[in-house]
Amino acid sequence: MKLFNETLSKIEKTNEKAGQEAQKRLDSLTKPPGSLGILEKVAVQLAKIQGKAMPTIGNKVVMTMAGDHGVTEEGVSPFPQEVTLQMVLNFLNNGAAINVLSNHVDAKVVVTDVGITADPIEHPNLNNCKVRRGTRNMAKEPAMTLEETIAAIEVGIKLVNEQIDKGATLVATGEMGIGNTTPSSAILACYSNEDIIKITGRGTGLDNNGLTKKQQVIKRAIEINKPNPDNPLDVLQKVGGLEIAALTGVIIGAAARKTPVVIDGFISTAAALIAYKMNNLCREYMLASHLSQEPGHKAMLDLIGLTPMLYLDLRLGEGTGAVLAFNLVEAAVKIIHEMATFEEAGVSNRK
Amino acid sequence: MKLFNETLSKIEKTNEKAGQEAQKRLDSLTKPPGSLGILEKVAVQLAKIQGKAMPTIGNKVVMTMAGDHGVTEEGVSPFPQEVTLQMVLNFLNNGAAINVLSNHVDAKVVVTDVGITADPIEHPNLNNCKVRRGTRNMAKEPAMTLEETIAAIEVGIKLVNEQIDKGATLVATGEMGIGNTTPSSAILACYSNEDIIKITGRGTGLDNNGLTKKQQVIKRAIEINKPNPDNPLDVLQKVGGLEIAALTGVIIGAAARKTPVVIDGFISTAAALIAYKMNNLCREYMLASHLSQEPGHKAMLDLIGLTPMLYLDLRLGEGTGAVLAFNLVEAAVKIIHEMATFEEAGVSNRK
Repeated sequence: MKLFNETLSKIEKTNEKAGQEAQKRLDSLTKPPGSLGILEKVAVQLAKIQGKAMPTIGNKVVMTMAGDHGVTEEGVSPFPQEVTLQMVLNFLNNGAAINVLSNHVDAKVVVTDVGITADPIEHPNLNNCKVRRGTRNMAKEPAMTLEETIAAIEVGIKLVNEQIDKGATLVATGEMGIGNTTPSSAILACYSNEDIIKITGRGTGLDNNGLTKKQQVIKRAIEINKPNPDNPLDVLQKVGGLEIAALTGVIIGAAARKTPVVIDGFISTAAALIAYKMNNLCREYMLASHLSQEPGHKAMLDLIGLTPMLYLDLRLGEGTGAVLAFNLVEAAVKIIHEMATFEEAGVSNRK
Repeated sequence: MKLFNETLSKIEKTNEKAGQEAQKRLDSLTKPPGSLGILEKVAVQLAKIQGKAMPTIGNKVVMTMAGDHGVTEEGVSPFPQEVTLQMVLNFLNNGAAINVLSNHVDAKVVVTDVGITADPIEHPNLNNCKVRRGTRNMAKEPAMTLEETIAAIEVGIKLVNEQIDKGATLVATGEMGIGNTTPSSAILACYSNEDIIKITGRGTGLDNNGLTKKQQVIKRAIEINKPNPDNPLDVLQKVGGLEIAALTGVIIGAAARKTPVVIDGFISTAAALIAYKMNNLCREYMLASHLSQEPGHKAMLDLIGLTPMLYLDLRLGEGTGAVLAFNLVEAAVKIIHEMATFEEAGVSNRK
């Protein structure tokens, strides 16, 4: 609890002055002002986060957190729970989409077991930080105790600090957990006025019956547990998940260290929503990567006030959309460093 | 005219069988089927274009065509016409956004003067293919003659062929031409049922008066010239532009050579719309990169049937959005090559 509270209270507002200087530099470059749209906004945001007009990007890392969900016993996913561990092994063997895409953008994948149901496995590239073997079934009781929730958050804080200490300058969130769109929709339902039907999707590919069941399960979980939206920790504990809590930790940990964090899809955004509700300043450190196929994703991004850059209809998670956005963040940084000014290039400005 | 007609008639349907094989491979990889959304569609499209289940990407090139517009005398841009040449010099000196972003994604920028008003300049990296010194003022007369239009199209065909001969496997369209959102909106107006007011935007940053004037100019250009939408060459000639015609040539040239072509923003999409109207099969070779800030862009993409991947609120042109999408196209290709299958990874498939 101490690390969690200390981290949360360490988060500061970003540097307005550096942002203004970055914008001034962008406006001096050979393009109509604002014509690079969100790329310019990203460059300014990075300047504010790093407190310097000319931000830089070094090592990039995606924190992929794995955990299981007791609620899968209700039949909310077409995939069996064993797949969580199988996919983690796939991550460790470089065979998954997150590996291919991270290699593509030169990012490191940090894989962590924060709550897989299966026995722990030993692997040099796996962080064994299992808090418990999957969550409890939230359709019957709270998914986690308060202690477990804090422990999972602190796993995320510790690991992101470790990576930042090793030189990470840009962090992405990623996850693996069969059934984890269910807690994510449940978290969203605590904060959204939208009907649960509207913000609950097919996850990895539920059929109509499965979707209806999932919507009922989420309704029941909220009725039984009565999560208190004014207390994001309560929401996370009752209808969240271990990997979601760990990602909340990654986000507040990165923000406390003034490090930009790129948010992946629906599950990662649920963690971002919790982090934002814990401390609104977290938003200043977040970049949204993509808009996923999950019907509730846009509403969730809107609640935080984030604008996604990629519209790729992804619904995979792992951090895949976030690492694809790394390329855009780096492009924004290169723009501010490498473009010629109107003066340097002898280009006439507006009439 | 001969090269144009031959090229147009050489365009073939893409290879369905290779596409099916690519989809089969994608479905065997360790992810829920379809969960990589548009990345999977891109991989399948490339397989169809290249006629092989496992498509590959080698050299990448952006064809940036520059031309001026007589219609600027009506005050449709806040920038003076001289900027077209100044920016071309900036391209040649590596100072523009397109240079920075192309370097970022390891693409070559091919710069061509197809119709700048200023005197021709000599530079080892500039293609001097000036068809005429800017178009005529379309608010008073047709922008080009038929001969000039064909000549500009054939510049694009020749140059893209040259690049493909040299090893280009992925082509992007780009342009520079002060005032060129005006002909682009005019082209769209010939094919769209939307009001001209709705599909005409601020370009590089017109104020309200400028925007109203631009809308009136487009209306007048269409009234005076009566372009025939059933004849895309007539539309291009009367209310198009030299760089737009050259890009039409790039697109049909790439399609004829079975080479994927990534379409940049509003002006490039106007060229793509003309190419599509000339031969619907062109669409099978096109990938849309981004949705620009121009209000007519979505309607234009819809007319062709293209879905953009990036939502960056760009309004710069040059090919900037298209080269950013190169990274996504390459990601799609790497996915199909490098991911493990369910069998290889020992991951359970759906229940």
